[in-house]
Amino acid sequence: MSNSDTRVQGKKLSPEKVMNKLVSLAKRRGFIFPSSEIYGGLSSCFDYGPLGSEMKKNIKDLWWTSMTRKHQNIVGIDASIMMNPTVWEASGHVSSFNDPMIDDKTTKRRYRADHLIENHIEKLRRDGKTDEAQRISSSYEQAADAEDSNKAFYDIIIAEEIKAPDTGSSDWTEVRQFNLMFKCNMGALADSAGSVYLRPETAQGIFVNFHNVRESNRMKVPFGIAQIGKAFRNEIVKGNFIFRMVEFEQMEMQYFVKPGTQKETFEAWREERFNWYKERLGLTPGKLHWYKHDKLAHYADLAYDIKFEFPFGIEEIEGIHSRTDFDLKQHQEFSGKNMEYIDQATNERYIPYVVETSAGADRLFLALLCDAYTEDVIDGEERVMMKFSPTIAPVKAAVLPLMKKGEMGEKASKFRNDLAEQFLVQYDDAGSIGKRYRRQDEIGTPFCFTVDHQTLEDDTVTVRYRDTAEQQRMEMSKVPEFLAAEIV
Amino acid sequence: MSNSDTRVQGKKLSPEKVMNKLVSLAKRRGFIFPSSEIYGGLSSCFDYGPLGSEMKKNIKDLWWTSMTRKHQNIVGIDASIMMNPTVWEASGHVSSFNDPMIDDKTTKRRYRADHLIENHIEKLRRDGKTDEAQRISSSYEQAADAEDSNKAFYDIIIAEEIKAPDTGSSDWTEVRQFNLMFKCNMGALADSAGSVYLRPETAQGIFVNFHNVRESNRMKVPFGIAQIGKAFRNEIVKGNFIFRMVEFEQMEMQYFVKPGTQKETFEAWREERFNWYKERLGLTPGKLHWYKHDKLAHYADLAYDIKFEFPFGIEEIEGIHSRTDFDLKQHQEFSGKNMEYIDQATNERYIPYVVETSAGADRLFLALLCDAYTEDVIDGEERVMMKFSPTIAPVKAAVLPLMKKGEMGEKASKFRNDLAEQFLVQYDDAGSIGKRYRRQDEIGTPFCFTVDHQTLEDDTVTVRYRDTAEQQRMEMSKVPEFLAAEIV
Repeated sequence: MSNSDTRVQGKKLSPEKVMNKLVSLAKRRGFIFPSSEIYGGLSSCFDYGPLGSEMKKNIKDLWWTSMTRKHQNIVGIDASIMMNPTVWEASGHVSSFNDPMIDDKTTKRRYRADHLIENHIEKLRRDGKTDEAQRISSSYEQAADAEDSNKAFYDIIIAEEIKAPDTGSSDWTEVRQFNLMFKCNMGALADSAGSVYLRPETAQGIFVNFHNVRESNRMKVPFGIAQIGKAFRNEIVKGNFIFRMVEFEQMEMQYFVKPGTQKETFEAWREERFNWYKERLGLTPGKLHWYKHDKLAHYADLAYDIKFEFPFGIEEIEGIHSRTDFDLKQHQEFSGKNMEYIDQATNERYIPYVVETSAGADRLFLALLCDAYTEDVIDGEERVMMKFSPTIAPVKAAVLPLMKKGEMGEKASKFRNDLAEQFLVQYDDAGSIGKRYRRQDEIGTPFCFTVDHQTLEDDTVTVRYRDTAEQQRMEMSKVPEFLAAEIV
Repeated sequence: MSNSDTRVQGKKLSPEKVMNKLVSLAKRRGFIFPSSEIYGGLSSCFDYGPLGSEMKKNIKDLWWTSMTRKHQNIVGIDASIMMNPTVWEASGHVSSFNDPMIDDKTTKRRYRADHLIENHIEKLRRDGKTDEAQRISSSYEQAADAEDSNKAFYDIIIAEEIKAPDTGSSDWTEVRQFNLMFKCNMGALADSAGSVYLRPETAQGIFVNFHNVRESNRMKVPFGIAQIGKAFRNEIVKGNFIFRMVEFEQMEMQYFVKPGTQKETFEAWREERFNWYKERLGLTPGKLHWYKHDKLAHYADLAYDIKFEFPFGIEEIEGIHSRTDFDLKQHQEFSGKNMEYIDQATNERYIPYVVETSAGADRLFLALLCDAYTEDVIDGEERVMMKFSPTIAPVKAAVLPLMKKGEMGEKASKFRNDLAEQFLVQYDDAGSIGKRYRRQDEIGTPFCFTVDHQTLEDDTVTVRYRDTAEQQRMEMSKVPEFLAAEIV
């Protein structure tokens, strides 16, 4: 599965090893903890720790600013997670946001039917049974396209005598569709009150507010609506740390355009978003890849994903999709409200087409962790360094007094507190200076400022650069300006 | 219910009138929309529009910075909404987070039993039946403290022949406890998989991470953990616009102290938080009030609320509670993990006490809306103005060219785009300049910069101050610095 070439200082590490190191560092230094860990955790839920919450905020703030403030025709919203249930009938999620599941009657375990077949094919390939694998693979492709794909999957599982990979049992029920939306009851009347869903995507909160946003902010097509928020999917298959979670955060922008112009808009956003990852977020360009969807979702007329080379494989971090007028049309039909736009200049009426950019904040966080992880040798000592850009790094700088007490400690402490008015700055006076540098390297702090004897005489400090360990004297009064320029 | 003295330009407006004006302005200008409005909405759910989402972000960012970056011993986290269900057994929410409900068998409607009695007493008072009201009020107080308060409430409702206020019917069932947590099933196995709750408060995400945060960030008691995040309560009684919603956002900080020092810590936080509302958030000091809890929650040894004079009454915006060691002790008991802290200097071991500051972001948003709403006369014309502080205002400035096209339009447009690198700045070239000022006044934009003929000659603009409508010339190059100084 992995095509990723994860090298650490020339040595190629196995994907498992890299991920283990990252998960351990993330917990040890306070980036990410397993949720409710003292109770044994909760399936694929994670908490962002002190450094993680700051870094995730940096990612979200950068996205928000890049999408809204820098574009005169894009505004943001923050819609509620719970919405009127009819929204999800209109969007198609109630009827079609399903996975095909099959139960084993003996073991009471449940599996994804399509995954059982895929695993079976893969196993045959590994065992050198290429022809057999090819034969089943063809039927599988037909089954996936079949009108009753549940029945077709079931037939393959029975015909090929596919067994559960973990138990070896095969006492199968029929294949049924299982909806991925979380459902809960609102109101005290458990019997009569309607169920509400936790939104499985943030996009619909934007579509249903199309006219509210347009009217209140006098927007003219083309214009965009951006949103950051949590979404929930009751996935059976989770994993790869925070890559696939049941509770996750999306950063989505829906851009409304005149029908017929979606292709050029799409290309413009494709370029802008790819550049954002390279230039603003600072991901290694060689690890970013385009993936074109050959099989399009029912609402799309063009779709690309931006993928990143994670240690465990090349996986999606953002989807850029031309969604046509599908969603607005559906909402017009289900709500009975006219979703047309009237062009004041030409008097044309139309339902706008939509080009969407949809990124996962948690996946991006993980991509940045993976991309930043570096082992090298500096000052003759091995170290682990997170090579975050200053904009993304949770801690922007550390102030390190050479001596704990007296005038030096006081001066350093005041220096730190002044900087903290503007930046997240740590103070560390414990242990040797080398040890303190290592601690900051490991959490990706780009700059360390050392307060020493000379500081007391001439108000200069030493700035030490994380990546090169180079040091340089700087006037204390110039430091805020220096940091502000580095954190763009 | 209302003790608030809402005066607008000397005229006293009724609470209903003020709220109607606010709700309408909030929708019209894009602060707050009813959720899924095209489908008739969803009970007490609201969406933040373009201006609302920016302003809420400003509130949250200000709180986050004030609590974390400015305190060397407070760090943030961002825990997941779904947690291991045992968390809510330990916290007491599974057994005790209930409202007493009663059903009417004829109408199939459900009511809060305590509210039925309270309404009845209030009605008697209004009708001048003071003695009777007093008598029932005493039994009600006893009933609330009774071991079986359900039975005691029921007895009062039957004895006093209390009827449903909306239907007049009184075909009552017994009184039962209804839990306020939203519950949903995780995993595909609807029958065997456990239920998960949507967290009803963010505090528990902090308590269960006590050791993870302490160890990863080498925190020493006293220290604090701050968090902003959504919480959910399946309330029957909602209302007052965004004041009480089923989905809402909390800004909480839990401060861990040595047992015995909680009182002085409590007093220090009481002062700091009150000042924050007055000085940083800019709420009218006279509308802020202290409320001391006489009846304490089972976990608290001291509790105050900061309340604000809303048009509909004086209501809580933040609770400051001394929670003792209740929560950590409970988690120690239910998880089997030692929750003690070891003081390295003295070798003392103890379970820390907790002082909590818990604010509602949405209530604060509403308090700011209510406090800012102003009607006055300026330049001989009536206007509506939102008197937001520059720090909180969603839009910091507007650039208004006197003429749409040509050199003036280009210069203004470039000026706006340069400012947009740092600030949220609107551009408006539609309609008379007076109309454009009114539009900005109504959304609380503190500064308007007008680009006119003189600008083309000497690169100066006119700055117009929202509150006074005073104008003054300023060099264009000085504007970024001017704005930065105003937005502290």
